[in-house]
Amino acid sequence: MNSELSSLQVQDIGEQGLLERLQRFCPPEIIGDDAAVLVTAPEQSLVVTTDVLVDGVHFSNVTTSPEDAGWRAAAANLSDLAAMGASPLGITVGLGLPGEVRVSWVERLYQGMTECLQKYNTSIVGGDIVRSPVITLAITAFGQVNSSQIIRRSAAVVGDAIVVTGVHGASHAGLELLLHPELGENLNNEEKTALILAHQRPQPRLDVLPILQKILNFQSKIQNLKSKIPVAGMDSSDGLADAIIQICRASGVGAVLERRQISFPAAFDHWLTPEQALKYTLYGGEDFELVLCLPQEPALALVQHLGERAAIVGKITPGSTVLFHDEQKKFPDQVLSLSQGFQHFKS
Amino acid sequence: MNSELSSLQVQDIGEQGLLERLQRFCPPEIIGDDAAVLVTAPEQSLVVTTDVLVDGVHFSNVTTSPEDAGWRAAAANLSDLAAMGASPLGITVGLGLPGEVRVSWVERLYQGMTECLQKYNTSIVGGDIVRSPVITLAITAFGQVNSSQIIRRSAAVVGDAIVVTGVHGASHAGLELLLHPELGENLNNEEKTALILAHQRPQPRLDVLPILQKILNFQSKIQNLKSKIPVAGMDSSDGLADAIIQICRASGVGAVLERRQISFPAAFDHWLTPEQALKYTLYGGEDFELVLCLPQEPALALVQHLGERAAIVGKITPGSTVLFHDEQKKFPDQVLSLSQGFQHFKS
Repeated sequence: MNSELSSLQVQDIGEQGLLERLQRFCPPEIIGDDAAVLVTAPEQSLVVTTDVLVDGVHFSNVTTSPEDAGWRAAAANLSDLAAMGASPLGITVGLGLPGEVRVSWVERLYQGMTECLQKYNTSIVGGDIVRSPVITLAITAFGQVNSSQIIRRSAAVVGDAIVVTGVHGASHAGLELLLHPELGENLNNEEKTALILAHQRPQPRLDVLPILQKILNFQSKIQNLKSKIPVAGMDSSDGLADAIIQICRASGVGAVLERRQISFPAAFDHWLTPEQALKYTLYGGEDFELVLCLPQEPALALVQHLGERAAIVGKITPGSTVLFHDEQKKFPDQVLSLSQGFQHFKS
Repeated sequence: MNSELSSLQVQDIGEQGLLERLQRFCPPEIIGDDAAVLVTAPEQSLVVTTDVLVDGVHFSNVTTSPEDAGWRAAAANLSDLAAMGASPLGITVGLGLPGEVRVSWVERLYQGMTECLQKYNTSIVGGDIVRSPVITLAITAFGQVNSSQIIRRSAAVVGDAIVVTGVHGASHAGLELLLHPELGENLNNEEKTALILAHQRPQPRLDVLPILQKILNFQSKIQNLKSKIPVAGMDSSDGLADAIIQICRASGVGAVLERRQISFPAAFDHWLTPEQALKYTLYGGEDFELVLCLPQEPALALVQHLGERAAIVGKITPGSTVLFHDEQKKFPDQVLSLSQGFQHFKS
């Protein structure tokens, strides 16, 4: 038994299983959001998130230029900050490189990261470069948030509206087009470019944060509320279905997702079957939108402010199931789950 | 010319050369200390530092247990915070792992990191685990410092005393004993253990910071000073000579290092030739002491408070040369330089 335990390998339990085993080495209050939160001063919190990307596992020269790999890595980390309600302070970049990598490749990677960071008024503030047999990119992003404005997965309550800040599925469609250009025969160039750009240059939704705060402040005032309106949320980096399920799990609630409220990228209409379009939209991932749960009134105001691509896609319910509902009965009602979701997507 | 430039590889210019080329992607005020400093609130700064360690390059199962690899990685990052005057808030750990790595190996690595962090009242606050063909450990540490208490390399002024917070050379001696146990024939077990422990379990000198601040406050008071007493410094992770040279470069000053003030680990006396002992002490590295430059009076008080292993080893001079001087003339006077230093050490 003991020797069995000691011969257990990472591949036997997977990265996720290992992460769970290692959580005992971390303070319990840290775990379960897009990023860690540390109180640094009265009212002020530091938000920290980290990602490791390995050549051939997380990016590849086949589908991704070094500029795009850099942009995407920076965007994913900024999105984790946005998901917590935090404004970026900067990122550090740890880089492992084989000796034969072209210097120009590395410079293009940094160019892509910097373009993304500059767009959001932040920058690379530190780093380390070491020799390694495989290109490895370790990014840590840190941001700052007023402690009362932290967005957590666990704060959803029954009756909340579920807001998405934009459409889903475009990034996954763009990746498919890069991998299999022949799939795009029915698309015009503009449509192809838009989908591919959604994959190559995703936009973390840091722009949502000041709008959200303005609306919450206004709503508090007109409703004469003494306490802050709580907002739950995360980003949709692992897909829309995943985000809603994770929020429901963390909050101990259920949800109903309304088919007719979920919009697709326009090109999906004449390109994918309704089943494919739904699959891409629910499980595609890497769109880096925010999925936010908040009371109906501020939710409506938020969607109006953000424009047509934002929508209320459902609401938080008692219980623990996440139900997908189609009023038009094109799709059967179904309970969404993470394992089902990924099976779905793989099929 | 253009194609020559684009075919340039990382191995042609080295990691250091690449780092210099990539600095144009970072804000200029960030570069040149042990860690990056970001002002987060009036009077408060966030200090961030990052390290990437690769199996076979930076650690190896031959000399290092996973617990020790973990301790050393955490200690090196905490030492960078100490070098800036900052107290730790936490670290993030990014881990790349081949599937066949034992889970118990990873747990022992985390055990070692946690032991070190707990000693300094901090913890792992976030992380990422991914599949990779080579074990890769990316640590980012962040700390906090009152902005007026930041220790920078560039703040040394002529007349400052150069303080070391402990002896140098022990860590390198410990590594040599691990690699070549036969070298330790003339050492007793206690001496061997002490040297090996200095390598396996280096102690970042965060304990120095409150003592230093207390002394500076007291000195300001009795001297009726209006402004803070400036302190320059860094840690001696790359060796004592390196630290002094780096501080002098950054401050635009020179230094004299006095042979008789530099103490060795006790075992060196009957184990190494005087030349070897000096080489280990000046160029050994990884002792993670602090090298601080400050006026004579607070320097004396600091050394007294820290005890016998701390010492004033020299002083800051005009010019730009770092002179090694032996009053007893056992060693010739010599100018220390980084390239000379490393050549020295390799010979």
